[in-house]
Amino acid sequence: MAILYKSDPVRGAQWAALHRERAPDIDFRVWPDSGDSAGVHYLIAWSIAPDFLAQFPNLEVLFCTGAGVDRLGLANLPPGLPVVRMVEPGIVEGMGEFVTMAALSLHRDAYEYARLQARGEWKVLPVRPASATRVGVLGAGVLGRHVLGRLAAFGFDCAAWSRTRPAIADVAGFAGREELQAFLARTDVLVCLLPLTADTRGILSASLFAALPRGASVVNVGRGDHLVDADLLAALDGGHLAEAVIDVMHEEPLPAGHPFWSHPRVHLTPHIASETQIPTAVDALIANVRAHRDGRPMLGLVDRAKGY
Amino acid sequence: MAILYKSDPVRGAQWAALHRERAPDIDFRVWPDSGDSAGVHYLIAWSIAPDFLAQFPNLEVLFCTGAGVDRLGLANLPPGLPVVRMVEPGIVEGMGEFVTMAALSLHRDAYEYARLQARGEWKVLPVRPASATRVGVLGAGVLGRHVLGRLAAFGFDCAAWSRTRPAIADVAGFAGREELQAFLARTDVLVCLLPLTADTRGILSASLFAALPRGASVVNVGRGDHLVDADLLAALDGGHLAEAVIDVMHEEPLPAGHPFWSHPRVHLTPHIASETQIPTAVDALIANVRAHRDGRPMLGLVDRAKGY
Repeated sequence: MAILYKSDPVRGAQWAALHRERAPDIDFRVWPDSGDSAGVHYLIAWSIAPDFLAQFPNLEVLFCTGAGVDRLGLANLPPGLPVVRMVEPGIVEGMGEFVTMAALSLHRDAYEYARLQARGEWKVLPVRPASATRVGVLGAGVLGRHVLGRLAAFGFDCAAWSRTRPAIADVAGFAGREELQAFLARTDVLVCLLPLTADTRGILSASLFAALPRGASVVNVGRGDHLVDADLLAALDGGHLAEAVIDVMHEEPLPAGHPFWSHPRVHLTPHIASETQIPTAVDALIANVRAHRDGRPMLGLVDRAKGY
Repeated sequence: MAILYKSDPVRGAQWAALHRERAPDIDFRVWPDSGDSAGVHYLIAWSIAPDFLAQFPNLEVLFCTGAGVDRLGLANLPPGLPVVRMVEPGIVEGMGEFVTMAALSLHRDAYEYARLQARGEWKVLPVRPASATRVGVLGAGVLGRHVLGRLAAFGFDCAAWSRTRPAIADVAGFAGREELQAFLARTDVLVCLLPLTADTRGILSASLFAALPRGASVVNVGRGDHLVDADLLAALDGGHLAEAVIDVMHEEPLPAGHPFWSHPRVHLTPHIASETQIPTAVDALIANVRAHRDGRPMLGLVDRAKGY
């Protein structure tokens, strides 16, 4: 009975070293050294080709190295195969850091001050309390809830939107498509932390931007496919949106010449808002494998029908 | 018995309106409409000329509109005159926001990513946990303590340095000149929140920078005169320091042509890290004036010997 890791090989070596130390009783292999295929009962990967699983007749669970499982191609997987997303403290803390940084940078005009400095211009903009900045988070899963806790602590006026009404302390909860407009109308800083599904693909589009108040900003830390790039550029260039913080793109690395690279109000990072932290992720994987062996529930089990 | 406000006249009008609403029994005047000079018992100002006070024979207390009283010229004031710095929640929260933004931006490589974007370069830098970034705050007053609370909540490895050893939860305390080297040696992000006194003027100098580990960064939200500009530029250009976040300067506005304007690793803001929030500051002033009338202690009373 072995676990096979199939993702970045440099990170794989770090996973293997820690796994050997912490669970020496469980065989841990790093692709392409997968040994006998029949011995592989657990696979952990970020993305897989549609026919990749066919070689492992005894696969019991597919784990994802990341918090979003969209790159595993759920539609192509055997219907009964349990799929588990990564839930570990490192990825949660990292997202809390990144979104807080982005929200504070927008609230405190950091991007505008950088442009003013580049022009050699000294200009004092009003300092408003955090309560005057309305942050809205699309998605209220483990990451969304943690982020909202961080933001609420600073006194931001916070709301969350989800399929079912989120109940989070100090955060206004909005539910479903019928309350999306009301949620957007009260949001100055929109943060996308949705899972990528057929329902959410392209949700960050012209009609959504138009429902935000003039001068709002967008932070996309979900997936590149949540966003219609051309609609964002039009909303920025038309002056309706102020800034966009974009960590995820349709194609990564972002192709040379893409207009995001040089847009003065688009602030790019290379999909680093949060990264699975190997030391804590190894513990999460071991705990889930042991839970599965013992017939206990696994943390992060994906609802195959919902897609997250 | 009147209070005279002598600072920015636009803000003065806002102070006056709120004061009239909240303390109609106390006469509040805005310079230059100071009325009969003998009636002025309280003055609130940001900076005053050395001979300004001579015209107010009955002055009982000098209040500062800001948290630092260095622009009042303590040495020139009558020795027995009580001087009170501004302590109000708005200025404290604002500083917490700004320093957290700066620390997260440094920790998460935001400035480096902005330079990479400008070059059209996709490069993933390692994501480390906050516990791997050691933040050190010079100064442990009301602002320093609040900032450290914010940073410690993110899991940053925090320390504070002060004249006397600071006792703050989850923060290592260092005291006095004899422990300054040890404090600096463990600091990746140095935040200056000291009062400006004869002891601290020019403290951010070549010898201090040399005691920081290579690759450290500096955030100056104290006063411009804490910093030796040429020493900072040498430490940045020599590669010993990575970045500098500079909110305060010797001369404000920063003169055209000053090398900070165009330095790629100096990130400027126009003295906006924190600003006294008038609605809460009016309450703080009224409470202190009433306390003084009743012979109770005032919040923020300056130790004239220490200078803060």
